[in-house]
Amino acid sequence: MHFTSERRLDDGVLAREFTLGEIPGTLWTPESVAPVPLILMAHNNGLPKGEARLVARARKTAAYGFAVASIDAAGCGDRPRSAADERARADLRRAMRAGEPVDEIFESFVGPLVEHAAPEWRTTLDALLALPGIAGPVGYSGWTALGIRLAVTEPRITAAGLFAGGYVPRAQRAEARQVTVPLLFLLQWDDEGNPRQRALDLFDAFGAKEKTLHANLGGHTGTPWFELEDSNRFFRRHLT
Amino acid sequence: MHFTSERRLDDGVLAREFTLGEIPGTLWTPESVAPVPLILMAHNNGLPKGEARLVARARKTAAYGFAVASIDAAGCGDRPRSAADERARADLRRAMRAGEPVDEIFESFVGPLVEHAAPEWRTTLDALLALPGIAGPVGYSGWTALGIRLAVTEPRITAAGLFAGGYVPRAQRAEARQVTVPLLFLLQWDDEGNPRQRALDLFDAFGAKEKTLHANLGGHTGTPWFELEDSNRFFRRHLT
Repeated sequence: MHFTSERRLDDGVLAREFTLGEIPGTLWTPESVAPVPLILMAHNNGLPKGEARLVARARKTAAYGFAVASIDAAGCGDRPRSAADERARADLRRAMRAGEPVDEIFESFVGPLVEHAAPEWRTTLDALLALPGIAGPVGYSGWTALGIRLAVTEPRITAAGLFAGGYVPRAQRAEARQVTVPLLFLLQWDDEGNPRQRALDLFDAFGAKEKTLHANLGGHTGTPWFELEDSNRFFRRHLT
Repeated sequence: MHFTSERRLDDGVLAREFTLGEIPGTLWTPESVAPVPLILMAHNNGLPKGEARLVARARKTAAYGFAVASIDAAGCGDRPRSAADERARADLRRAMRAGEPVDEIFESFVGPLVEHAAPEWRTTLDALLALPGIAGPVGYSGWTALGIRLAVTEPRITAAGLFAGGYVPRAQRAEARQVTVPLLFLLQWDDEGNPRQRALDLFDAFGAKEKTLHANLGGHTGTPWFELEDSNRFFRRHLT
């Protein structure tokens, strides 16, 4: 893991860009003398890790007392995409606009995306936990499909906050019953890209004994700011 | 309003029993020099206001910085019940155990119960706001059907936390669209007495622009303790 830049922000958070092989990432850490728990913050595959809302969320979470890491995994964010992926994304957008069924298109490119992203996140996790000042336990926050994959394959993850989750590849829908860590499942009631009933069915399917659903009125990007505080309090209960 | 007893609790909260005509009530107030907002905490009609879990909830909410009031409204809690009401409750329990439809039985006694309880709560609200140390704004917390009735008829209520809500009389289901104050709608995912889909449909129906759903795994009495904190933070956002 090579740090390529660092910046001390006015809330005391240290923001460092890093590379780990081909993986570009950002690590936010709070001012703290004691080692802090780690949260892996994985954004939706279509957005780069530098997107303003994602950065604001990571930074506020770090200011709350956690180390927060984000990467652009293979095929995600600013990483190169195959011509087939670009075509699939264009097909998906066209089908969604036309109100046509999107399951097969979605499956064809998001399924492999999750499969390729998961090992890169695990490699990143290994490297992060070797840094001074970062301790377990480890939380996961964000992209639902990847969160399911990591929660069932990575025993170091002890709590997960999952967002949206109406469209999730079949493999992860099938794995949901194996997710047993405490969950905070956040959805937007009118999310234009995530059918509500599917998200509710997924919440129902999780095998966790402690799972909480939060839903708010509005579309995909309309999550109210207080949910960030709720998320921080969820992780404080389970990681500290 | 006549105070009949008072007790200073170890968290500094003052608990006072009162009567207002035939209405028995309890008022919890925090140690505060400035006037505090008021929360009307209305329990499910089958429980007395002195039930241990309800008292603990009221007391912790008061310790957080709110005046909290609870009454046994007509036909509720320890107030006398008509022979017809007793019969209807017995019929309801029997039908629920047998897995038979309960809508008509439920409607026949909970509908009038809400109608009779609402004016007593409004009378109590008038008396409470005349006390020194209690200011608006006013929140409502608890029994869903009564909360809907009060939210649409009582402009002094500015935010409502509603619990359960699977079985709600027809009149209140119809009024849900007129509820426009911010809502925190809390349900238990496996509530044996409140069908989940009906509760979700009711959440969908509310006319509020800001409405949040919280759901947790487990039965009716299994709400986790952190929901009380979430509720207090909801009221802090809207009442202070």
